[in-house]
Amino acid sequence: MISAQQVQATMTRYVELVDAGDIDGIIALYSHDAVVEDPVGQPPIQGLVAIERFYRDGLGASNVSAVLTGPVRATLNGCGAMPFRVDMEWAGQPCSLHVIDVMEFGADGKIRSMKAYWSPINIGPLAGA
Amino acid sequence: MISAQQVQATMTRYVELVDAGDIDGIIALYSHDAVVEDPVGQPPIQGLVAIERFYRDGLGASNVSAVLTGPVRATLNGCGAMPFRVDMEWAGQPCSLHVIDVMEFGADGKIRSMKAYWSPINIGPLAGA
Repeated sequence: MISAQQVQATMTRYVELVDAGDIDGIIALYSHDAVVEDPVGQPPIQGLVAIERFYRDGLGASNVSAVLTGPVRATLNGCGAMPFRVDMEWAGQPCSLHVIDVMEFGADGKIRSMKAYWSPINIGPLAGA
Repeated sequence: MISAQQVQATMTRYVELVDAGDIDGIIALYSHDAVVEDPVGQPPIQGLVAIERFYRDGLGASNVSAVLTGPVRATLNGCGAMPFRVDMEWAGQPCSLHVIDVMEFGADGKIRSMKAYWSPINIGPLAGA
């Protein structure tokens, strides 16, 4: 089991990597048999090959920035949840998407599952603009 | 399936009821066979009788306030996640607990499951104090 501190550190790093558009860095955080559901309600994406394609098609094709908007909540059994904001262009307009990611970690510290909670209701004008 | 708007409204109401200490109101939001895991990693609490006892022993025995600290993220399949803060006394000191609750809703709009993500790492000095 990884500690709550390790959960916080890895999830904070994940948002930094999304912000930097560093897809290799993101993929390195996932375990081989990880499952991603983004957004929750879509069919799960299973395994590192499919997960890498998901990030390259999405994040790799856009110009986004990402920032934590509150502390990472970390449990004592290797799970975490965090609120963050993704700023991007949507139909030519700058906008902000408010997301909460929930992650489960393996004993090796790698992400075993990621679920992203959001829908179009969480997209609005650029925050702070 | 309830809408993302309904998920947002019910989860916002939940935090208002926690803030008000209105346990009857909170219990009325849950379905009969609901499951609560608070914090995640603890044994799940199953069914309305056990869930009511959980709230009466916890919330009912303390003087807390609660406030949303960001938008409720609501999915298109009846789920939601929200960041909030609970201000309370801990060992005689005022402090703030940062939580993320994840909920699944039934077609009747009632909460089927609630998972609260936090651990002692998320308790700190009273926010804003």
